[in-house]
Amino acid sequence: IRELWKKVQEIAVAGWELGRSDPRKIVFAGKMGLALTLVSLLIFLEPSKNIARYAVWAILTVVVVFEFSIGATLSKGLNRGLGTLLAGGLALGAAELSHLMGDWAELATIMWIFITGFVATFVRLYPTMKPYDYGFRVFLLTFCFIMVSGYRTGEFVATAVNRFLLIALGAGVGLGVNLCIFPIWAGEDLHDLVVKNFMGVAKSLEGCVNGYLQCVEYERVPSKILTYQASDDPLYSGYRSAVQSTSQEDTLLGFAIWEPPHGRYKMLKYPWKNYVKVSGALRHCAFMVMAMHGCILSEIQAPPERRRVFSNEMQRVGSEGAKVLRELGNRVKTMTRLSSPSILFEVHEAAEDLQRKIDRKSYILVNSQHWEIGRRPEGIEHVDGVNSGNRFLATKSLSETVIDFRAINNLSKSWDVQNSVNTGLDSSTQTVGSPEALLTKQISWPARQISILDNIPDEEEPSTYESASALSLATFTSLLIEFVARLQNLVDAFEELSEKAKFKEPVQELIVQ
Amino acid sequence: IRELWKKVQEIAVAGWELGRSDPRKIVFAGKMGLALTLVSLLIFLEPSKNIARYAVWAILTVVVVFEFSIGATLSKGLNRGLGTLLAGGLALGAAELSHLMGDWAELATIMWIFITGFVATFVRLYPTMKPYDYGFRVFLLTFCFIMVSGYRTGEFVATAVNRFLLIALGAGVGLGVNLCIFPIWAGEDLHDLVVKNFMGVAKSLEGCVNGYLQCVEYERVPSKILTYQASDDPLYSGYRSAVQSTSQEDTLLGFAIWEPPHGRYKMLKYPWKNYVKVSGALRHCAFMVMAMHGCILSEIQAPPERRRVFSNEMQRVGSEGAKVLRELGNRVKTMTRLSSPSILFEVHEAAEDLQRKIDRKSYILVNSQHWEIGRRPEGIEHVDGVNSGNRFLATKSLSETVIDFRAINNLSKSWDVQNSVNTGLDSSTQTVGSPEALLTKQISWPARQISILDNIPDEEEPSTYESASALSLATFTSLLIEFVARLQNLVDAFEELSEKAKFKEPVQELIVQ
Repeated sequence: IRELWKKVQEIAVAGWELGRSDPRKIVFAGKMGLALTLVSLLIFLEPSKNIARYAVWAILTVVVVFEFSIGATLSKGLNRGLGTLLAGGLALGAAELSHLMGDWAELATIMWIFITGFVATFVRLYPTMKPYDYGFRVFLLTFCFIMVSGYRTGEFVATAVNRFLLIALGAGVGLGVNLCIFPIWAGEDLHDLVVKNFMGVAKSLEGCVNGYLQCVEYERVPSKILTYQASDDPLYSGYRSAVQSTSQEDTLLGFAIWEPPHGRYKMLKYPWKNYVKVSGALRHCAFMVMAMHGCILSEIQAPPERRRVFSNEMQRVGSEGAKVLRELGNRVKTMTRLSSPSILFEVHEAAEDLQRKIDRKSYILVNSQHWEIGRRPEGIEHVDGVNSGNRFLATKSLSETVIDFRAINNLSKSWDVQNSVNTGLDSSTQTVGSPEALLTKQISWPARQISILDNIPDEEEPSTYESASALSLATFTSLLIEFVARLQNLVDAFEELSEKAKFKEPVQELIVQ
Repeated sequence: IRELWKKVQEIAVAGWELGRSDPRKIVFAGKMGLALTLVSLLIFLEPSKNIARYAVWAILTVVVVFEFSIGATLSKGLNRGLGTLLAGGLALGAAELSHLMGDWAELATIMWIFITGFVATFVRLYPTMKPYDYGFRVFLLTFCFIMVSGYRTGEFVATAVNRFLLIALGAGVGLGVNLCIFPIWAGEDLHDLVVKNFMGVAKSLEGCVNGYLQCVEYERVPSKILTYQASDDPLYSGYRSAVQSTSQEDTLLGFAIWEPPHGRYKMLKYPWKNYVKVSGALRHCAFMVMAMHGCILSEIQAPPERRRVFSNEMQRVGSEGAKVLRELGNRVKTMTRLSSPSILFEVHEAAEDLQRKIDRKSYILVNSQHWEIGRRPEGIEHVDGVNSGNRFLATKSLSETVIDFRAINNLSKSWDVQNSVNTGLDSSTQTVGSPEALLTKQISWPARQISILDNIPDEEEPSTYESASALSLATFTSLLIEFVARLQNLVDAFEELSEKAKFKEPVQELIVQ
């Protein structure tokens, strides 16, 4: 008993949490109870025995039609009404025909039921009929019921009319309670969902860029991520929920278009579709964040010191990108237009900075080590040494470079000593100017390959994946830039939405600024 | 009338197409008609007036329980049964309690209805209760109906028992027809869906790699892709359906676990969950294909001649990757284990080849043009010239390289002339061995920057995005390699599935090979 009590307590706590996290659920449950009570009362108070007999229809209608959101309630109610009316009409006609058959009436009735069942079910399975699925069920149910009970009692019309009256009663009570007391709108939910997606992607983007620069690594990638299941990982859940919300959005859209103008959505034919479109454009951006996260998940990782080279620029692109997303999300939330078309200006500038830096330093993104295939461990150490020296230079102002230049000369001289040891066969090609030195090297390696081919391939193998590490940085940055490029598309979708939904002008903000 | 006739014809054609594409739909519609006919017949033949009065319950049950797949039918049937039984029991108890209240019985009944309605609806909204949604509805309906009609007639027990008998009748007919005549299994659908996803991703992968190498470009990216809507694009639809099928898989999984062992799935507790897991791992790979497609969609495109350099290797990785996917898909389809653990051997080898080529030629992936920031149009022309010369060399056998070597010497000498013009200030650093020549250049440019800084920045701007083009090739290849890396995870998931689902050993194949 003790344990049972504990279980009950746990359940109560869970219920309390649920209620607190979304009070609308409590309200909805209360509304449901109220509607049922009202219908029962009406049936109690009605003296006619006939009504009580068909009472089930009223209760059934309330239970079935009472959906969480207004849109769902209306669409189900309409389905029910249409289905019942059509079925009633058809059943009356079919019954008349069966009567004309005389002795064969019974067979005709059975035939009717079979044919109607077949045709209605087949049409119901047609993809475009999905939203009317419930209507077809009601149609079938009503048709069969009227045919069967009418056959026994002979009161086709009375059955149909009574039934319809009670369904109307149930629908009336259900709709009245649901619409008038604290209505819950699917459109509102859709709106919130889109805003939430914006924030989620923004959070993921920032998290990805920061995590990448701080060289966050997963010791073991959660298998839930590997199989695309929901997971607690904050980076992952942000974009996953945005990517995953398609079907939820479609459902909400299906309900929202049924809802009458209300609250902030004071317009007939409110462009709910454009919310879904904006969300789709956001998803297109989120895929890039997903791919960036893939770079973090990957086993192939760029060395931290190389990431640090682009750290400032990438950080800026990341935070500017997230800022744009948050800004757009807030605009959607508050339903205001963009104050100027230049929302992307800063993020584009940041991306161009990053791009320019990449242009100048793209040698960091590739592994020069293998260009000459020969093994030169000392040389590699030098590469790192030079990179850091280079970074040192880059951070200095131009006026100081004259001083640094001397240091460079010293460095390069120290290499000369080492190089004269390394270079043998093709020393004749070494006296080339710096711009083409790179190219000469490229050409020289086929010649070298002859001498070292025998002892290289085995030792080359293990480092192939490893040497992809530098490219991984290139991938991350170019995904980041592609993300920025895709923002334009998102802004376009937003502007179409703000146009069609007649978002208000951002007057106040201009004054504040 | 003519137009109406045309409409009818069109609809008939659409119906015919639907029936031909999935004959199961016709069969299902026929079964539905049959079940309804049977129930109606039973009610007709039964002489007792009492039955006809409650006939609606039997028909309702058939209509509602008759779902497309067996799993859905069973789970709905169980929900209905449990809901009805529980509601019946509770309603009887509540009615007894109400009776004890004497004069207050009416109020007590109303109270009961409200409280039950509230609690049941609230619990129903709890996320984990989603699969039992229908059960709660039935519970509420039955409870209210018994309370209301029982109150009027005073025959609580008779109402409950009659109702339950007719529901059992309806459920019996519905289940009997649905299970015994050409059953449609949700598990089978799930199985097929997973196989279809494999094929779709394989097709997209091949299409992406080939399209990229053939430099396919979208004149205008379809806005449907930009907002992630369904589109006819074959590349896109392949991976989209795999990415998009999560909710469908979850639904099918929810039904499949209800199904008894059948056909090829002769096992209690068949691991349907693992099919979804394999599909999730496949999705994780598909995201890479999606990102690769993003490279094709992007405005930033790598120049065709650079793509051609890696053409053979990339083609090989793409086709080997697609082969692995098709192979795995077929294994899932035929439910055979992997014959050896080396299914990834060839694709890994291909990826390593590609990686090695990238290592050697990574200078193609970056724009060296900006490394020295100074403008040198002639120099750039040389870059292209050398690249093609280089490619020419690479295709020759090693025995010929001695001859080519002379040509190289000539080339490099011709550069010397040009370089002596270009290099001024830092000529002291030029006499370095080829391995470090690259590094010298990197260091020399900050010094140069001083002299040319004034006239460069303006002309640098327009080329920033353009120069990302070479990096785009790097991105594509490293995404391709990451895709290969993710295949391991997919194979692991497949092996877990083949273990748990006791796939058959591939005996025949070994003999054939």
